[in-house]
Amino acid sequence: MVGFWHRLGTKGKALYSATLSPPFSSPLTLPHIWVPTQTPNRPLSSGFHRATGQTRSAAEIMSGKPIAKDIKLRVAAEISRMKAAIGRLPGLAMVLVGYREDSHAYVHIKLKACNEVGIETSIVQLPQDCTQDRLIDVVSSFNSNPSVHGIIVQLPLPEHLDEETIINFVSPEKDVDGFHPLNMGNLALRGREPLFIPCAPKACIELLLRYRVEIIGKNAVVIGRSKIAGLSTSLLLQRHHATVSTLHSFTNNPEQIIRRADIVVSDVGIPNIVRCDWLMPGAVVVDMGTNSVKDPNSPRGFRTTGDVCYEEAIKVVSAITPVPGGVGPVVISMLLSNTLDSAKRAYGFT
Amino acid sequence: MVGFWHRLGTKGKALYSATLSPPFSSPLTLPHIWVPTQTPNRPLSSGFHRATGQTRSAAEIMSGKPIAKDIKLRVAAEISRMKAAIGRLPGLAMVLVGYREDSHAYVHIKLKACNEVGIETSIVQLPQDCTQDRLIDVVSSFNSNPSVHGIIVQLPLPEHLDEETIINFVSPEKDVDGFHPLNMGNLALRGREPLFIPCAPKACIELLLRYRVEIIGKNAVVIGRSKIAGLSTSLLLQRHHATVSTLHSFTNNPEQIIRRADIVVSDVGIPNIVRCDWLMPGAVVVDMGTNSVKDPNSPRGFRTTGDVCYEEAIKVVSAITPVPGGVGPVVISMLLSNTLDSAKRAYGFT
Repeated sequence: MVGFWHRLGTKGKALYSATLSPPFSSPLTLPHIWVPTQTPNRPLSSGFHRATGQTRSAAEIMSGKPIAKDIKLRVAAEISRMKAAIGRLPGLAMVLVGYREDSHAYVHIKLKACNEVGIETSIVQLPQDCTQDRLIDVVSSFNSNPSVHGIIVQLPLPEHLDEETIINFVSPEKDVDGFHPLNMGNLALRGREPLFIPCAPKACIELLLRYRVEIIGKNAVVIGRSKIAGLSTSLLLQRHHATVSTLHSFTNNPEQIIRRADIVVSDVGIPNIVRCDWLMPGAVVVDMGTNSVKDPNSPRGFRTTGDVCYEEAIKVVSAITPVPGGVGPVVISMLLSNTLDSAKRAYGFT
Repeated sequence: MVGFWHRLGTKGKALYSATLSPPFSSPLTLPHIWVPTQTPNRPLSSGFHRATGQTRSAAEIMSGKPIAKDIKLRVAAEISRMKAAIGRLPGLAMVLVGYREDSHAYVHIKLKACNEVGIETSIVQLPQDCTQDRLIDVVSSFNSNPSVHGIIVQLPLPEHLDEETIINFVSPEKDVDGFHPLNMGNLALRGREPLFIPCAPKACIELLLRYRVEIIGKNAVVIGRSKIAGLSTSLLLQRHHATVSTLHSFTNNPEQIIRRADIVVSDVGIPNIVRCDWLMPGAVVVDMGTNSVKDPNSPRGFRTTGDVCYEEAIKVVSAITPVPGGVGPVVISMLLSNTLDSAKRAYGFT
């Protein structure tokens, strides 16, 4: 099959460049990043574990905690440098409508993380029955506030509010979630750079790169196509030159397609739906599911689990993210990173 | 596997709706459209030929000509109605930089088609060495001209001009090519509707629907990921709930993936690269390639051919678009349709 791609290679330089530079360079993906010390001899280009010829007795657990910690340290250092140089801090604004336990938990985590690195935060909480105009007013005021560099409208919104319309009102320059269609279009279009990459796919790629998983040319399957995670991860993996198949509720026999994948990303929202016999031996799994399941042994009465049956999968795969402690912490650190990037752009600080 | 999707079905109504309405309803996709008369008894939901149990001795040739003719007639009728009602016509502006034989041929085809249906056209041709500012001036003047409802910057541009910047300047309301990142983002995001769907993917879906090819849940492979055709076709097929895999120059063993596809869309630009042993028996092939190959028997010295080895493929597949006469004519008619839609929006004419 070399002939096929050799011929393709003559088509154009942009699509078929042999040397791949990172699609998105940020201070956080420059050299000297944290990488797992237990795999010092696995070069970035060595491919999957099974391809290295190394005998592995168990799957590598791709913890997100050390990566998140590293990113937070680097964001905090940059914020200190910015404060010292121009006397400004990044600002993140969050808008909540009504009360949802999960939304409040997420907002709490974000607040705590912002506080750790020195990002100023504002929260506006509106009543469950607030009007669309009132919500748009709040978003507009954040759009025009020069101290606010990132705006998050916590989803999901109550049903009487139109999520698309609200998101359209968030200034693309402050859309740190990356959900604005302009940012999504620039993510889809190679050669263009979105102002913000959504945090979940950014975290997924960061995990793969830091654990030295080769992406180029690998068969990747993304299960689910939400804009928050699945869709945008498909687009970003494709920018990294994976061959991406996107699965969803209309897919027939999903396990047949998943079983051929080198990289499996799950964004389903159903605990333990991906079983070990769906996974190719040696595959790399990134589990984006965050599902609460009842657990009488837990002090809170429930525990968090992913989409992938972890206990089964670790016997089959070469690497897997745990839930909790996998993608989640990295997602939060990416939000901090996006907010910092936005503030730097706003102040022209480099 | 029913259980898998049954459980998924509980997740949310938007993603998992069982009753699918067309992602984009336009007057051109309403009932009473032209459909091939030779297949009167093949209901839209019957799936592929091989699934109907009908004995087929040869592949169905999915000609685009009758579809294009039908669309043109409908566009012309709408334009007459608009002219009679409000005394206005749609206007399409084209900008050409320098001289390229293929670009001029495309522009010629577009001009001819516009003339047939009653769309006014303006063309500005700038010299090969024109400055970026001059090109932006021209685009801006079309943006502010109320008689212009569609703007086409004929690609590719000379290398000294930045294509992305120019396309960003085209007003999204007049971006009948659908290449603006805002339109592309709205195409990627289910639940949103782009103002314009790029003409090539729109033509691809139109061909599949009119030839009663079921898309939902089918394994579709798109070979190539250009914004003009491959990328946007992947996104549109996904909106129609196909399970889409996008192949490109970094894909390993592409034939293995193509061989499992119910629907194969090719956007490679290399004549005859897709051979019959790459295709699953009974697959449906949409060939978007438009390649010139030398042909001493042709009066022009060359002929146009697709990416798929047609003579081989017709022995294997259940349906295939010819080149020329397949996707091409429908693409042009979609440009007319997009321009009409834009004029109707601009004048508030329904």
